[in-house]
Amino acid sequence: MDFSYSDKVVALKRRLEEFMEEVVYPGERIYYEQLASQPSRWMIPPIMEEMKAKAKAAGLWNLFLPDSEYGAGLTNLEYAPLAEVMGRSPIAPEVFNCNAPDTGNMEVLVRYGTPEQKEKWLKPLLAGEIRSCFSMTEPEVASSDATNISASIVRDGDEYVINAHKWWSSGAGDPRCKFAIVMGKTNPDAPKHEQQSMIIVPLDTPGVKIVRTLNVFGYDDAPHGHAEIVFDHVRVPKENLIWGEGKGFAIAQGRLGPGRIHHCMRQIGMAERALELMVQRVKERVAFGRPLAEQGVIREWIAESRIEIEQARLLVLKAAYMMDTVGNKAAQKEIAMIKVVAPNVAQRVIDRAIQAFGAAGVSQDTPLAYMWTQARVIRIADGPDEVHKRHVARLELAQGAERPN
Amino acid sequence: MDFSYSDKVVALKRRLEEFMEEVVYPGERIYYEQLASQPSRWMIPPIMEEMKAKAKAAGLWNLFLPDSEYGAGLTNLEYAPLAEVMGRSPIAPEVFNCNAPDTGNMEVLVRYGTPEQKEKWLKPLLAGEIRSCFSMTEPEVASSDATNISASIVRDGDEYVINAHKWWSSGAGDPRCKFAIVMGKTNPDAPKHEQQSMIIVPLDTPGVKIVRTLNVFGYDDAPHGHAEIVFDHVRVPKENLIWGEGKGFAIAQGRLGPGRIHHCMRQIGMAERALELMVQRVKERVAFGRPLAEQGVIREWIAESRIEIEQARLLVLKAAYMMDTVGNKAAQKEIAMIKVVAPNVAQRVIDRAIQAFGAAGVSQDTPLAYMWTQARVIRIADGPDEVHKRHVARLELAQGAERPN
Amino acid sequence: MDFSYSDKVVALKRRLEEFMEEVVYPGERIYYEQLASQPSRWMIPPIMEEMKAKAKAAGLWNLFLPDSEYGAGLTNLEYAPLAEVMGRSPIAPEVFNCNAPDTGNMEVLVRYGTPEQKEKWLKPLLAGEIRSCFSMTEPEVASSDATNISASIVRDGDEYVINAHKWWSSGAGDPRCKFAIVMGKTNPDAPKHEQQSMIIVPLDTPGVKIVRTLNVFGYDDAPHGHAEIVFDHVRVPKENLIWGEGKGFAIAQGRLGPGRIHHCMRQIGMAERALELMVQRVKERVAFGRPLAEQGVIREWIAESRIEIEQARLLVLKAAYMMDTVGNKAAQKEIAMIKVVAPNVAQRVIDRAIQAFGAAGVSQDTPLAYMWTQARVIRIADGPDEVHKRHVARLELAQGAERPN
Amino acid sequence: MDFSYSDKVVALKRRLEEFMEEVVYPGERIYYEQLASQPSRWMIPPIMEEMKAKAKAAGLWNLFLPDSEYGAGLTNLEYAPLAEVMGRSPIAPEVFNCNAPDTGNMEVLVRYGTPEQKEKWLKPLLAGEIRSCFSMTEPEVASSDATNISASIVRDGDEYVINAHKWWSSGAGDPRCKFAIVMGKTNPDAPKHEQQSMIIVPLDTPGVKIVRTLNVFGYDDAPHGHAEIVFDHVRVPKENLIWGEGKGFAIAQGRLGPGRIHHCMRQIGMAERALELMVQRVKERVAFGRPLAEQGVIREWIAESRIEIEQARLLVLKAAYMMDTVGNKAAQKEIAMIKVVAPNVAQRVIDRAIQAFGAAGVSQDTPLAYMWTQARVIRIADGPDEVHKRHVARLELAQGAERPN
Repeated sequence: MDFSYSDKVVALKRRLEEFMEEVVYPGERIYYEQLASQPSRWMIPPIMEEMKAKAKAAGLWNLFLPDSEYGAGLTNLEYAPLAEVMGRSPIAPEVFNCNAPDTGNMEVLVRYGTPEQKEKWLKPLLAGEIRSCFSMTEPEVASSDATNISASIVRDGDEYVINAHKWWSSGAGDPRCKFAIVMGKTNPDAPKHEQQSMIIVPLDTPGVKIVRTLNVFGYDDAPHGHAEIVFDHVRVPKENLIWGEGKGFAIAQGRLGPGRIHHCMRQIGMAERALELMVQRVKERVAFGRPLAEQGVIREWIAESRIEIEQARLLVLKAAYMMDTVGNKAAQKEIAMIKVVAPNVAQRVIDRAIQAFGAAGVSQDTPLAYMWTQARVIRIADGPDEVHKRHVARLELAQGAERPN
Repeated sequence: MDFSYSDKVVALKRRLEEFMEEVVYPGERIYYEQLASQPSRWMIPPIMEEMKAKAKAAGLWNLFLPDSEYGAGLTNLEYAPLAEVMGRSPIAPEVFNCNAPDTGNMEVLVRYGTPEQKEKWLKPLLAGEIRSCFSMTEPEVASSDATNISASIVRDGDEYVINAHKWWSSGAGDPRCKFAIVMGKTNPDAPKHEQQSMIIVPLDTPGVKIVRTLNVFGYDDAPHGHAEIVFDHVRVPKENLIWGEGKGFAIAQGRLGPGRIHHCMRQIGMAERALELMVQRVKERVAFGRPLAEQGVIREWIAESRIEIEQARLLVLKAAYMMDTVGNKAAQKEIAMIKVVAPNVAQRVIDRAIQAFGAAGVSQDTPLAYMWTQARVIRIADGPDEVHKRHVARLELAQGAERPN
Repeated sequence: MDFSYSDKVVALKRRLEEFMEEVVYPGERIYYEQLASQPSRWMIPPIMEEMKAKAKAAGLWNLFLPDSEYGAGLTNLEYAPLAEVMGRSPIAPEVFNCNAPDTGNMEVLVRYGTPEQKEKWLKPLLAGEIRSCFSMTEPEVASSDATNISASIVRDGDEYVINAHKWWSSGAGDPRCKFAIVMGKTNPDAPKHEQQSMIIVPLDTPGVKIVRTLNVFGYDDAPHGHAEIVFDHVRVPKENLIWGEGKGFAIAQGRLGPGRIHHCMRQIGMAERALELMVQRVKERVAFGRPLAEQGVIREWIAESRIEIEQARLLVLKAAYMMDTVGNKAAQKEIAMIKVVAPNVAQRVIDRAIQAFGAAGVSQDTPLAYMWTQARVIRIADGPDEVHKRHVARLELAQGAERPN
Repeated sequence: MDFSYSDKVVALKRRLEEFMEEVVYPGERIYYEQLASQPSRWMIPPIMEEMKAKAKAAGLWNLFLPDSEYGAGLTNLEYAPLAEVMGRSPIAPEVFNCNAPDTGNMEVLVRYGTPEQKEKWLKPLLAGEIRSCFSMTEPEVASSDATNISASIVRDGDEYVINAHKWWSSGAGDPRCKFAIVMGKTNPDAPKHEQQSMIIVPLDTPGVKIVRTLNVFGYDDAPHGHAEIVFDHVRVPKENLIWGEGKGFAIAQGRLGPGRIHHCMRQIGMAERALELMVQRVKERVAFGRPLAEQGVIREWIAESRIEIEQARLLVLKAAYMMDTVGNKAAQKEIAMIKVVAPNVAQRVIDRAIQAFGAAGVSQDTPLAYMWTQARVIRIADGPDEVHKRHVARLELAQGAERPN
C-alpha cells in the first residue's frame, strides 16, 4: 500500500499544471470573448486551435489513451491525476484532445474498429482535426436502462438503414463534428443484451436532421451543444457497423469504465478549483468588520470541502487502480461508487464557494456558476445516482451472504 | 389558533388559480417562443401585455399592496397564499403587476413619496405602464451589510449629483424601465444608519451608463436583465430625494419585510409546482420494469418534499401573521427564519424533481432547471443564509438570558 | 388563520410552566437519587407520589382526556402546547397522569370499555393509583405492519385463552402495573383488518411471565421498564374483551392519532429544553479565548435549531387542528408527517446541544444524553420513519392525479 | 501508488479474523452474562483472562506497538487494518492488549519512561497483568484546548504534590487498574506549551479519591468505568515524573497521532460490522409482503453506507501512511480529517442499521445500540469535531496563499 504518485506521474502532472497556468487559464477569458464577439456562437474561437497546437507541441496530447500505439499509454491510475488537472477548466479537456465524447469514441475505434474505420475516422480524431458525437440517449425512454434504447438499425443489402430519435448528442453543434456513433437495435429478437449495435453515421448523410440544441440550466454550451437529432431512413454502408451485430451493449459497457474515471477526476479538479477560489475570496472579502476567513461557518465550509474532496479523490484513484489490476468487471462496485461520490462532492463544494462569493458566484464573473451546473448534470449523465446506488447495494447484498457472524 | 384561510382568501385564491390555468400556464410557452423569435431578446413579448390586460380586467391586479387606496388592501397573511400561486410560474408575477423590484419600489413611493413623486412615478407603475429598478448592491463591497454601501449622493444647488457603481439592478434591461431608486451616502459623517438616502434617477439622465447585464447560471433573464450600471456625475432635481436625507437605511428596512414574505411564498409556489411535476412524471416513467412511482427512493423524495413544503409554508404564514399583528420589528426573527427556510426547501424539492426527470429536468423542456437556479439565487439575494442565521442566533442568545432552569 | 394560542390555553400553559419550575425540575434530581439509593430500581421513588398529589391539587391532572366527564376536556389543539411543556422533563408526564401507555389505555377504555371495565380498570388509572401496559409488539414479526401480529386469543366457554410472545410492553416493570391490554388474533379467518382483538389481562393471572426487561441504549428505564412477556395459556373472563371480537385493529387506529400528537409535542418540548440548555452553556463556556456563544458554528447550530423547532411545532399544531376539525382520517397525512418530523428534529437539536456540552453532554450530568436516545427511539416506535413516509407518498401520489398542469 | 495490503498484513489480518470468529464473537455473550451474574459489575468476567491467554498464545498480542522490542513492530499503516478488525467487538481490544487508554500509556512509557518506570509499570502492562488510566480532562475547563488544564503538580523535596480534579479517567473502575498518568501544571509561569507535565500516580496513594463513575448514554461501561477522581494533596516520589518538567504538552501531542488512527480504524470496524448486520437482517425480515432487502430505501442505505465506509477507510489508511513516511507533524491535516470523518460515518451507518432492525436495534439484543453511542462519544473525545475542522481550515487557509490562479 502506497499513497504517492509515481515519479512519472508527478513529472507529467507538473508539466500539465504549468501548461494550465501559462496557456489555459489565461486562454479562458479570450475564448469566451471570441465566442461572444463572433458572428455566431456555433463557430470555434480561434484561440482553441492555437492552444491545441501548443499542447501537441508540448507532448500533452491524447494522454487518455492507454494504447501507446495511439496515445500516451498511461494506465487509468496514471491518467487519473492528469484528468483532475484538466477538469479545473471547462475548456481544458479539448485543448489536450481529451474531451468527451471524443475520448470514448476514440477508445471504441481503437479497440473495435476495422483498419478502414481507423484510417477514416480515428486518425483525424487523434489529430484533433475533426470531432464526433455519441447518439445513444432517447427522449422517449429511460436510458438509465440501456436495454430500453429503441432506435432501429436494419440491414438492407450493402447498407444499414437507421431510424432513430436521439437527444443529448453532445458536440453535434460543433462545425468540426463529422460523425456520430449511433446505438440502436439490429437484432430485436436476440437475448436482451445482444439486440443492440453501434454504427458510424457521417452527419452529412441525407436524413440526419439536427432538430434543435438543448440548454443546460440556461447554458447552450456552444459551440459544441447538445443536439436532438432525428435519423430518418438514414443509409450508411454496412462497413460502418462497429465490431458486429449485437455487440452494442458490450461496447457500451467497455466504454463506460474509463469514461467514468475521467468524469469523476474532472469533477474533483473542479471541486479543487472551487475550493481554491473560495479560500482566496474569504481572505479578501470583509463583512461585519472581519474578513470572511475569520468567521467560523466559513472555516467549517473549508474544512468540510477539503475532507470531502480528499476522500472522493482516494476512492476514484482506488477504482482506477482496481481497473488496472483486476479489471473493469471486478472494479464495478468501485466504479459505481465514484460515479455517485464525485459529482455530489463537487456540487457541495462549489455550492459553498458560491455562497462565499455572493452574487458574483452566480454570474459569469467566476467559473463557479457554470461548474455548479456541470456537477449537477453529472449526477444524471451516464446513469443517475440512484441507478449506481442500486448497483452497489445489489453487489453488497450478494456478498453479504458469505459471512456468518 | 386556526389553520384555515379565510373565505375571502379562499375565493381570491381560487380565482387566481383559474386564471393561472386559463391564461398564464398556456402563455408560458408562447412567451418564450416570442422572446426567442423577436429581433432582440430585450423586447417585451406581446403576450405579456395581453395577459396583463386580462389580469387587470379580472380584478387580479396590484394584489400585493396593503394600502387599499392603491391596491387590493390585503394584509400580509391574506396576500401570502396568492403570492404562492404566482410563484408557480416565472412569468406570473408581472402578469399581476406583482413582480420585484417594482412591488418594493411602489411600496416605497406609497409610503414615503411626495404627491409629485406619486403622480409621476407611482401612477404609471401601478398601471403597469412603466417598470423600475432598484440600485443598491455594489460590486466592491459586501452588501449583506447595507452600511457598506459606498455610492455618493451630493447636494449641489437644486440638484443632487450621484456617483455610483452598482450591479444587480434587476429589470434595468427592460425597455419599459424608466427609473431607478438609487441608494447612496448623502451624509457620510452622520451616525452609521443615517448616512444613506434613496433617490429617484430617471434612466435617460445623462451619465447613467448600463455597462453590461449579468447572467445567472447561464440565464440572461431577458428582457428584464440584471444590469451593472455606472452613475457618472448624474444630476437629478433635489425633489427626487425620497422622504429625506439620511432615511435610506430606514426605507430599506421597511421595504424588506413584505418583500421577503413575497419572495418566500413564491419559492413555496415553485416548490409546490416542482412536486406536482415530479408526481406526474414518476407515474408515467418506467425504468427497470416498474413506474418510478413504485420505487422506494422516489416515494421517499415525494414524502420528504411534502413534509418540507408544509413546514416552510406554515412558517411563512406565521411570519406574515406576526407582521400584521405585532409589526415587522417584533416579527424580525420569523422573517429571518423564512428567508433561510424557503429557498433551501425549494432548492431541495426541485433538485429531487430534476433527478426524477433525468436529462429533461436540466433542459429547457421543463420549468425545473430555471426554478432550481432561482431558488439558489434567493439563498444569496437580500442577504445570504448565513447573515439571517446570525440574526436568529443573536436574538435567541439575547432571549435565553431570561429563563433560569 | 390565527397563530396565537387561545386565552384559555395561555393561562393553562402558564400554570403548568410554573408547576414545572416549582415542583418538577427540582424534583428530577431527587427522583433519580431516590431511585439509585433504594434497595431496588424497580420501586417507585416516593417523591413521585408527592408530586402527583400536588399536580392533582393544582388541577393539572388528566389534561390529555378530551372527554370532560373524565378529564380536562381539551381539544387536541388545546392539549398540544401542554404536552410540549410536559415533554421537557422525562418524569413530568407521570406527574400529571399523562404518560404513555396509560393515556392510550385510558382513552381506549373511555371510548370502548364496558361500565364494568371502566369501574374496575379505568377509575384507578384516572386516579393514578395503578398503572397499565400495552402488549402489542412481538419479537418475531415486523409490527410496523399491525396485521402481522400473531398472538392467539381463543374463546373457551366463558373465558378467552391467550398465547402470546410480546415485548416492549413498556411500564410492566412498575410494581403498580396491574394489567395489560393485549392484542392478538381471535378471528384468523376473517378479513385482514378484522382478525385482531384487544383484551384486558391482569398481570397476576397465572401464565403471565415477564421474561426480562429490555434496555434502551443502556438505560433500563426503571422503575417502569420495557418488558418481554410470555402469555402461556393465560385465561381471563370473556368480559375482559374490549368492544368486540375483530375490533382490535380499529381500536389500534383510534388509539394512534392522539398518541402521536402527544409524542410529537413532547419531542418538541425536549428539543426546546435542549436548545435552552445549549444557549446557557455557550454563554458560560470559554474555549480558545472566547465564549462558545461568539463562535460562528455555534450560532449556526442555535439558528438551525430554532428554525427546525418552530417549523415542527407549527406542523404538529396544524395536525392537531385538523384532527379536531376534520377528523383523524382526513388528518392522516399530517399525522404521518409529524411522526417523522418531530423526533428527527429533536434528535438533531439535542445532538447539537450535546456537542456544545462536550463530555458532560453524554453523561448523567445533563438530561441531554437520555433525551437524545429517547428521540432516537421515537423514530422507531409507533412505526419507523419509513413507514410514515411511504404513507405520505401514497396519499400524495393519489392526490396528484387530479391536477392537469 | 498501490491500494493493496502487503502479504504480511493480509496474513496477520486473516489470523486475527479467524481468532475473532473462534474466540471473541462467541465470547461476547458469555462476557456479558458473567458480568451480569457476578456479585458486582466492577469485577472482571473470567472469560476475559481466558481469551487474553489464547490471544497471547496465538501471537496476537501488543500488535499496536511499533517498537519491536516490546510489541509487534508494525507501522501505523500495517497496524491500521488490524485495529479495524478489533473494532468490530467492544471487548476485542482488551483481548489483544490493544485497548485505550493502556495503549497510549504504554507508548508513552516506551518512548519517555526511565528504565525503572519501564520495569515497574510498563512490563506488567505489556503482560496484561495490570491496567492503567489517563487523567487529563477536567470538568471545569474546556479540555479541547489542552493548555486550559489547571491541575497542580508541585515539587516538594523528593516528592511531587498533586492537587487535581479530573474526570473521564476511563478504566479507573477496573480492579486491575494500578496507576494513572496525570497531567497538570508544574511550571505555571513557563511559556504556554511548556507549563504541563505528566506524572505516574499509583491509585492506592493516599489522597486519591474516586468520587463516582460517569455513565455514557446509560451505559456504566463496567468493569472499566469512567471515573471522576479527586487528587487531594497526593504525594508521589519525584522519580514518577515522565521525561521532565514542562514536557506534558509534548507527550500529549506524541500520544495523540497513533491513538487517533487506532480510534478511527476501530470506528470503521464498528461501521463495517453494523453494515454486515444490516445486510443480514434485511434479507430475513419481511414487511408489507417483501423482504426489507427489496425495498428501495433500504438499498439506498446499504449503498450509502458502503460508499461512506470505503472513503473513510482510505483516508485513515492514507493518514497512517503519511505518519509513517513524512511524520506526525506533516500528517496533521490528515489526522484531523479522519478524526472528524470516522466517527461521523460510523454513527450514520449504525443509525441506518438500527432503523433496519427496529426495536431490537436499540436494545441489548444487538451490538448496535452500544456501538451507536460509542460513535457519538468519539465525536467529542480527543477534541470535538469542530476543533479538528478549525485545524483543517487553518492549514488550508495557510496553504491557499501560495497559488496564484
